[in-house]
Amino acid sequence: MQRQAIAWRKAGRRVVLVPTMGALHDGHRRLINMARKKVKTNGIVVVSIYVNPKQFNDPKDLKDYPRTLSADKKLCREESVDMVFAPNTLYEKDVSAGVKEDDLTTRLEGLHRPGHFAGVMTVVAKLFNLVLPDFSVFGEKDFQQVTVIKRMVRDLDYPISILVGPTVREADGLAMSSRNVLLTGDLRDQATVLSRAIELSRQSLGSRAVDIKRKLKRFIEKQPDAQVDYIEFVDTINLNPLKTVKKGSRILLAAKIGPVRLIDNGLL
Amino acid sequence: MQRQAIAWRKAGRRVVLVPTMGALHDGHRRLINMARKKVKTNGIVVVSIYVNPKQFNDPKDLKDYPRTLSADKKLCREESVDMVFAPNTLYEKDVSAGVKEDDLTTRLEGLHRPGHFAGVMTVVAKLFNLVLPDFSVFGEKDFQQVTVIKRMVRDLDYPISILVGPTVREADGLAMSSRNVLLTGDLRDQATVLSRAIELSRQSLGSRAVDIKRKLKRFIEKQPDAQVDYIEFVDTINLNPLKTVKKGSRILLAAKIGPVRLIDNGLL
Repeated sequence: MQRQAIAWRKAGRRVVLVPTMGALHDGHRRLINMARKKVKTNGIVVVSIYVNPKQFNDPKDLKDYPRTLSADKKLCREESVDMVFAPNTLYEKDVSAGVKEDDLTTRLEGLHRPGHFAGVMTVVAKLFNLVLPDFSVFGEKDFQQVTVIKRMVRDLDYPISILVGPTVREADGLAMSSRNVLLTGDLRDQATVLSRAIELSRQSLGSRAVDIKRKLKRFIEKQPDAQVDYIEFVDTINLNPLKTVKKGSRILLAAKIGPVRLIDNGLL
Repeated sequence: MQRQAIAWRKAGRRVVLVPTMGALHDGHRRLINMARKKVKTNGIVVVSIYVNPKQFNDPKDLKDYPRTLSADKKLCREESVDMVFAPNTLYEKDVSAGVKEDDLTTRLEGLHRPGHFAGVMTVVAKLFNLVLPDFSVFGEKDFQQVTVIKRMVRDLDYPISILVGPTVREADGLAMSSRNVLLTGDLRDQATVLSRAIELSRQSLGSRAVDIKRKLKRFIEKQPDAQVDYIEFVDTINLNPLKTVKKGSRILLAAKIGPVRLIDNGLL
């Protein structure tokens, strides 16, 4: 991969990377379309597909994570992706160096998934060095991840612009996620409560966050198999929690729907 | 700097980076000569000069570290360096992301200088991303640092070859170091005990490391102002301590000579 990347660089081609863990859906398709639009037909769109073990804190989540490589490759062909980079592994046996962050990653997902963001940052740093892109596209659905990656790019001076693609939703509001296929039976219906909670929060501008969080938690947990991990209203830049639900802030939430842990977020 | 680096890359120029903290001496000159030899006259030699606060665990050491920027620039001109990169600072006020390593850095200097190697790796990662070199040259005098940087390059997949320049010594054996100017009065003479200890260890092949370490510690601390931090015989790849002093292994040592902490090492 790196040799190819160096050849593109020498040829003056602009390269955009879309890092994924596969099980591609229309949310990914949207990111790939953004990537293509950015570099036009003369540029190179690379989609990486790698279920990165280092970012899973829960071995069962890693085991159950959907893997659909041939369908993924088909989607990439449909979208005229120039290269699918799907390595078997990216780590040496005695790997010991990586990227860490000690502010943004200490909260929210970072609290509930120890080691997750160090794993994400490390694999993204590696992909940046292997693919040498000018741009890289991430999905807004993983809002904290986007914030953390932007911080890494800033603090390590990567010469890469980060583009953010919007969350794509099913007709009933459920945010597209590779893990949605694990929502069996009526869990799929119950899962719509997350986007409905976000809608509900939009009626609460000016209220105390602590009150709305309590209310939304009750609302979500009315579903028989739903259990909230966190609900937080945050500043969009530094992810600091806000005391008041304000226009321009963002609601981030995580909940388990049966055995499936989902996250979602929305701008207020 | 990064814009210039991208321009060189587009023009197909080969770039080699010599990262330094300034106070340049003949050891650095040797590294710069290696750099030039590697990329010939058509390539670009960049010397970075930055006293990186993040790698100092001791504020007094940071304060006392010699700074000789105009003499450094003169030396660089003499050696036909293409660019001296001497930033005022490399960190945002709320910097929070960096590089860490949790094997090689837990020993030797890592034990005695908490946070030192995380600071070194982070600044080198930043310099790599700012200068975008094909090669980077480090001095063997900081042997553990070289090992740690090679590990970082491997584990983060930097497309950069690491070159290692030999330790340059004064006529009496003292390894050249920017900190040597701080050796006032007869401390300068006492400091030669480190290289003499390395010589002495070469007569001990086949002995138990624990015995030789004890003997060398006594030898060094015969100097009135010398105090050993550590003496270790290690495997040159993974820095694991060895039980027996073997040909091909390396002795690493650190000691304070009065207020000045020095390190040295040698191949057996």
